Amino acid sequence: MMGLMATPWNYLRRKLQLKTRVLHTVKGGLTSQVLMSPPLVSLDLPDIWSLSSSRLSVSSVHKIFNEQTAWVLDGKMISMGIRSSIAGEVRRMEECIGKVPGLAVIMVGQRWDSQIYVRNKIKACEEVGIKSCVTELPTDCTEAEVQSALLRFNKDPSIHGILVQLPLPQHLDEGKVLDVLGLEKDVDGFHPLNTGNLAVIGREPLFIPCTPKGCIELLIRSGVEIIGKKAVVIGRSNIVGLPTSFLLQRHHATVTVIHAFTENPEQITSAADIVVSAAGIPNMVRGNWIKPGAIVIDVGTSPVEDPSCEDGYRLVGDVCYEEAVNVASVITPVPGGVGPMTVAMLLSNTLDSAKRMLDFT
Amino acid sequence: MMGLMATPWNYLRRKLQLKTRVLHTVKGGLTSQVLMSPPLVSLDLPDIWSLSSSRLSVSSVHKIFNEQTAWVLDGKMISMGIRSSIAGEVRRMEECIGKVPGLAVIMVGQRWDSQIYVRNKIKACEEVGIKSCVTELPTDCTEAEVQSALLRFNKDPSIHGILVQLPLPQHLDEGKVLDVLGLEKDVDGFHPLNTGNLAVIGREPLFIPCTPKGCIELLIRSGVEIIGKKAVVIGRSNIVGLPTSFLLQRHHATVTVIHAFTENPEQITSAADIVVSAAGIPNMVRGNWIKPGAIVIDVGTSPVEDPSCEDGYRLVGDVCYEEAVNVASVITPVPGGVGPMTVAMLLSNTLDSAKRMLDFT
Repeated sequence: MMGLMATPWNYLRRKLQLKTRVLHTVKGGLTSQVLMSPPLVSLDLPDIWSLSSSRLSVSSVHKIFNEQTAWVLDGKMISMGIRSSIAGEVRRMEECIGKVPGLAVIMVGQRWDSQIYVRNKIKACEEVGIKSCVTELPTDCTEAEVQSALLRFNKDPSIHGILVQLPLPQHLDEGKVLDVLGLEKDVDGFHPLNTGNLAVIGREPLFIPCTPKGCIELLIRSGVEIIGKKAVVIGRSNIVGLPTSFLLQRHHATVTVIHAFTENPEQITSAADIVVSAAGIPNMVRGNWIKPGAIVIDVGTSPVEDPSCEDGYRLVGDVCYEEAVNVASVITPVPGGVGPMTVAMLLSNTLDSAKRMLDFT
Repeated sequence: MMGLMATPWNYLRRKLQLKTRVLHTVKGGLTSQVLMSPPLVSLDLPDIWSLSSSRLSVSSVHKIFNEQTAWVLDGKMISMGIRSSIAGEVRRMEECIGKVPGLAVIMVGQRWDSQIYVRNKIKACEEVGIKSCVTELPTDCTEAEVQSALLRFNKDPSIHGILVQLPLPQHLDEGKVLDVLGLEKDVDGFHPLNTGNLAVIGREPLFIPCTPKGCIELLIRSGVEIIGKKAVVIGRSNIVGLPTSFLLQRHHATVTVIHAFTENPEQITSAADIVVSAAGIPNMVRGNWIKPGAIVIDVGTSPVEDPSCEDGYRLVGDVCYEEAVNVASVITPVPGGVGPMTVAMLLSNTLDSAKRMLDFT
């Protein structure tokens, strides 16, 4: 009969902390450390069940909640730090081997939001010294034309990362397009093999999707211990919600994914220590959805008409910030929270890809 | 600004039911219908958020719970029905094209439980007319030897399904072995690309892992409507827990995965309408973990010493059956619940694979 081991939890927690600390110490000595999040396989721990009901005496999330307003995580500032480290690494690469990372972007059509996103990515590349190029295709182009652009970049040795700006026009099959993208250049991490390797314990994807990676980096930098925490991910998109849930699970949170068919989402969310919202519905998550002291990461970025703003609109998150800021212990603003982190993670993935392909450490 | 649509839930529910019904009607007219579970892509619905808090008036799970003891799902009997349909299909295939499906099993080492499982699978193949062969390798064989056996079966046109009996001896890297397995013959569905395509909405894996597929088939046959239900999966193994959570989510349940690092698993489980337990800890899930009227699928199968039994042991599930049977509305026994369904799903996957490879409908 399989025995029930006595309270292995603290042992495993210590082991994980040790692993992470060793990793940071080792990497800290090198100039190559850009992110705080450890590789996923280093997180893998055996699931040894202990049946005592209260393994954590006091939630550390609650401990840090002792003021009336939340600590607002400045994603812009954090991402600037990361981008500065990346710029240093790119310089070092150029000095050592005379090469820099290269990113190719394929944009189909003229969506105004896609144009803004692509422009921001290209600008960010320039700032850190990553070479970039954009291929613009007309809205009515064929699948074969997108695939052909992809194949060209797959073969180009000066390109280490390729991204197809989503969403594509409806007549194009996103799956068929992404299947052509070379796995080792898939810096967005949307290829299903990367998704599979992110979901499966014991494996590590070549790339973690940028927004989910940015969310975890924010959580780690906010000092929250993810292991053992109740996490709720609102939204199950293939590019944010699902991979974020896999990542949180790899960090040993207990994850519930909420979607449009969920009954009483507010009740489920209000039990969570960590809430990551990526539904795309402005102000959906009200203050009473949030457990006092919870960590709230708001991925939602929806334009809302506002004549008082210069462009006639402003960006609003999924979370009703004014209410949640008085309940949460940590919160990200919109804009200026997750958004800049997404771009920083794209640069980080492109740098990692170039290092891997050029065998540069 | 993105608008909040008025209660689209009932509309979507009707659409899904209609889709499923049409599918069954279409398939019902053919002899090829073996399972009740629809293809995954037919389940894909847009996530249109409605913010009314109680979209389901009365839970249908509760409606069917009106007696003191649960309805015990007879997995053995249900699987016999499925196996009989598969046998009919294999006969039809042989009559029409003179070929039958072929399954290859690779077994490394002499684990007594693996030997029993492999023997059962081979016997089940024989009964439905599927050709099978087993390659036995010694415990101390190399990764290259397992890979070479796999490559041989990959090339063999009479083989339509290959499975590597897990777990492998510790010195072998499961990932490296499975990577060699031809995707189109991966009837266990363990290749990470199949896992990724199961997790990602809008895609469909070539194969769904057998035990998770068997669990969903049992749920569908028990008449439970999965959409909108709270589901808890206990255990996050790559072969049962994780793919089961993806499948339940594809069926629009709100899924929480519980693992060894989860705090208060009993509290989370007791809120679930559907519980699938795959932790491998005998009797871990007690009666007070179960919400009255919940559906309980017990995947756990652990041998427990029992001198009164012929073999000196008996098989025990994760769920304390004697307690849960008085609380749940539907429950699966161990043995005789999920186990026989797993074998039936392996036969079903092998048949589907042969049909696809031989272009037989």
